[in-house]
Amino acid sequence: RRIMRPDDANVAGNVHGGTILKMIEEAGAIISTRHCNSQAGEACVAALARVERTDFLSPVCIGEVANVSAEITYTSRHSVEVQVNVMSENILTGAKKVTNKATLWYVPLSLKNVNKVLEVPPIQYARKEQEDEGKKRYEEQKLDRLETKQRNGDVIFPVINPEPHTVGYSQSSLIHLVGPSDCTLLGFVHGGVTMKLMDEVAGIVAARHCKTNIVTASVDAINFHEKIKKGSVITISGRMTFTSNKSMEIEVFVDADPFVDESRERYRAVSAFFTYVSLSKEGKPLPVPQLLTETEDEKRRFEEGKGRYLQTKAKRQAQMQQAARQ
Amino acid sequence: RRIMRPDDANVAGNVHGGTILKMIEEAGAIISTRHCNSQAGEACVAALARVERTDFLSPVCIGEVANVSAEITYTSRHSVEVQVNVMSENILTGAKKVTNKATLWYVPLSLKNVNKVLEVPPIQYARKEQEDEGKKRYEEQKLDRLETKQRNGDVIFPVINPEPHTVGYSQSSLIHLVGPSDCTLLGFVHGGVTMKLMDEVAGIVAARHCKTNIVTASVDAINFHEKIKKGSVITISGRMTFTSNKSMEIEVFVDADPFVDESRERYRAVSAFFTYVSLSKEGKPLPVPQLLTETEDEKRRFEEGKGRYLQTKAKRQAQMQQAARQ
Amino acid sequence: RRIMRPDDANVAGNVHGGTILKMIEEAGAIISTRHCNSQAGEACVAALARVERTDFLSPVCIGEVANVSAEITYTSRHSVEVQVNVMSENILTGAKKVTNKATLWYVPLSLKNVNKVLEVPPIQYARKEQEDEGKKRYEEQKLDRLETKQRNGDVIFPVINPEPHTVGYSQSSLIHLVGPSDCTLLGFVHGGVTMKLMDEVAGIVAARHCKTNIVTASVDAINFHEKIKKGSVITISGRMTFTSNKSMEIEVFVDADPFVDESRERYRAVSAFFTYVSLSKEGKPLPVPQLLTETEDEKRRFEEGKGRYLQTKAKRQAQMQQAARQ
Repeated sequence: RRIMRPDDANVAGNVHGGTILKMIEEAGAIISTRHCNSQAGEACVAALARVERTDFLSPVCIGEVANVSAEITYTSRHSVEVQVNVMSENILTGAKKVTNKATLWYVPLSLKNVNKVLEVPPIQYARKEQEDEGKKRYEEQKLDRLETKQRNGDVIFPVINPEPHTVGYSQSSLIHLVGPSDCTLLGFVHGGVTMKLMDEVAGIVAARHCKTNIVTASVDAINFHEKIKKGSVITISGRMTFTSNKSMEIEVFVDADPFVDESRERYRAVSAFFTYVSLSKEGKPLPVPQLLTETEDEKRRFEEGKGRYLQTKAKRQAQMQQAARQ
Repeated sequence: RRIMRPDDANVAGNVHGGTILKMIEEAGAIISTRHCNSQAGEACVAALARVERTDFLSPVCIGEVANVSAEITYTSRHSVEVQVNVMSENILTGAKKVTNKATLWYVPLSLKNVNKVLEVPPIQYARKEQEDEGKKRYEEQKLDRLETKQRNGDVIFPVINPEPHTVGYSQSSLIHLVGPSDCTLLGFVHGGVTMKLMDEVAGIVAARHCKTNIVTASVDAINFHEKIKKGSVITISGRMTFTSNKSMEIEVFVDADPFVDESRERYRAVSAFFTYVSLSKEGKPLPVPQLLTETEDEKRRFEEGKGRYLQTKAKRQAQMQQAARQ
Repeated sequence: RRIMRPDDANVAGNVHGGTILKMIEEAGAIISTRHCNSQAGEACVAALARVERTDFLSPVCIGEVANVSAEITYTSRHSVEVQVNVMSENILTGAKKVTNKATLWYVPLSLKNVNKVLEVPPIQYARKEQEDEGKKRYEEQKLDRLETKQRNGDVIFPVINPEPHTVGYSQSSLIHLVGPSDCTLLGFVHGGVTMKLMDEVAGIVAARHCKTNIVTASVDAINFHEKIKKGSVITISGRMTFTSNKSMEIEVFVDADPFVDESRERYRAVSAFFTYVSLSKEGKPLPVPQLLTETEDEKRRFEEGKGRYLQTKAKRQAQMQQAARQ
């Protein structure tokens, strides 16, 4: 539970999606670390492996209180699924609303040997179906993680004097030196810190494209394939891949360069798609300028983005119809 | 609920008392603002008026989770009493311990007119005695606030080339420019921000005196007589007033200088006594070098500090005997 | 590259020069550490040795994006010269402007033995003149560092009840306990952290003098003679030395007290001159009240400051004439 401060917000007073993602991850890390240490045995820290697709249902504003609650919903032999809910509350009016619901996967790493994954104590399910559904979600995410690992190879090249609304026009990157307060007890970056930086870059890309106030609408599933060590330099790069009438999709890459201490090369640590919407001063959605694609790759990525957009839209309509029927 | 980070801690890995005080105040501000807005009427923000004496029962370490819970325990016409409990939890071992219990008083200020104090909706008491005891606490703190307001006039003078263990040797002060993220919606400094800075100065005074690792053991009642506006420069000064065998008492003053925009003079905003203990590397209490008093004023303050020390000691022994009898 | 937040700014919404200096130093530390580790051999961290005089050409505002780019421009056997450029960009309008250009010198320290300076891999120059000019800059800064080391002995004495616009009236100092998140992997304070604190004190001195909104106009060359260790208390003191019609020069000292763990005495770690201007609410330069000098030392420092002011002015006029001729 925490009051949102001016620090956490963009120019229009809406709290960055990244701040919310960081809070969610912190809650998930606490509950899963606590669970994995609940039985006698080797001490461990839960490391974030994956965040499922997350929708931001309504923006949070400065001065509101964010209430975060977390629950373990499934355990496999080596991983924990956590469901985190965020409610924002205007303590002046008492109004509460659901901000988002997120599902995260954690893996317990030994405190003594960071490369050793420990076993997770099983949870009790109220009904057998809960376990079966959890197992299905577990299998699905495992498959998706494998697939993402393979298509993770792209690089963002800088463009000189780009035309407005092209991909090169809004693409952005930032670098960050990983300090001690970014890290867990094991000396690796908190997943939440990475997500906050990713949202920051995605927000800059979106604002550059449409020159208005923008807010995070959703984040695609994010897989954390590789740990990032204290003292590394991380480069977070973002480029726009797709625009619909009222939304923008931005692909974000995180590359880590463990440049001190290690002979290791720079590597791709994380990648994800963020969706942003443009808002008027009154908080109403605004039309978004269409992304101008130039190269074959850009056109292909635009079509893939369109595919994801239509799929999400169809899924949401199906859910709404189902909800209406109930 | 939040994980303690390296940022929050001293060199030995203990979390600063000031970080805990800031969390406590945030929890108190949330619950009392929510309560004061729970009935139809003018919107308001709860401003901290007073914190009762607080003991730090056991230190919190980096990587532990601090759990904060708050409850409204009494309401007068224009003020709210909040009880806040902090538990620290080692999520690796599951061990929990009470860190401290604090009592805070808030006053609701109108969002439209910051000088207008609004009425507080009354709470329901489970038993009549609860209301009577609350009323007694209310009257006591009211009296104490009046008294402190009058003795608030002292100034700390600098000393050139002081001898070790004199008052001048360890006295310290820091300045801070009040920025937007230090402030409430009304544009005044959060009480918790002020307390964190006070603890920072007191800690530096204590460390300069005994050259070891030190931790906050308790904080005297703190009265917030005057608001501090955004854009002010605040000077926080601390001097040692008393040492026992194993503890140091430090008096801290906060002076505000609303130097931009205003014709107002510099004024004393807050003052309080902090008690620190010195710890070995293994966390055991160490003997403290005795404070060398030189002037009449220093000797008088030492005797007054001794009085407070003996009074607290007697009170604690009485409580322990009572607890043993129950 | 990063979005400027309310935290980073003064009351009028201009980003503090200290925040920019900290970003510049981070970029410099990253590129020079990466370069010095680019060949097989002992791992090292680049430590800041010196920042050349830096002009702040235009203020940055909240919500703007600061773009930082860095390039290695010269290497000697044991040091690296880095040129860092900062552009601020209003992402809503697309307007870009140069904020400043800085030149920094780094020295590679061994990760295993912090007192061992390693060798720097040489860079390739496009033209022979580049190397010659770099060598000239290298010799010049080496000389200046030696000279500063000797004149670094002054102390700021406190003044009781000073008159407005005297030196004693605005002089200020703050203390800071060096925590883990202020430090590099080697456990010494980042140069950028020190510069940010120096700018904070200088800004308070300037604001106390003229009671208006003020911004950093330039920073004199800063030499980092001595490392500051984690756990030290640093005292940063500032006093006004000179005023022209529209600018104020403030001298800032950093003293380190490695009081835990070490028998070492307090020592002067850094000193520098900051120049500030006073701005109206519309961002126009305002006249500055003249500094009243009282003692012989103050009068001498005023004349020295005037000398620096006239020299800088002459240099700038010469540059402008040269630029006009081209």
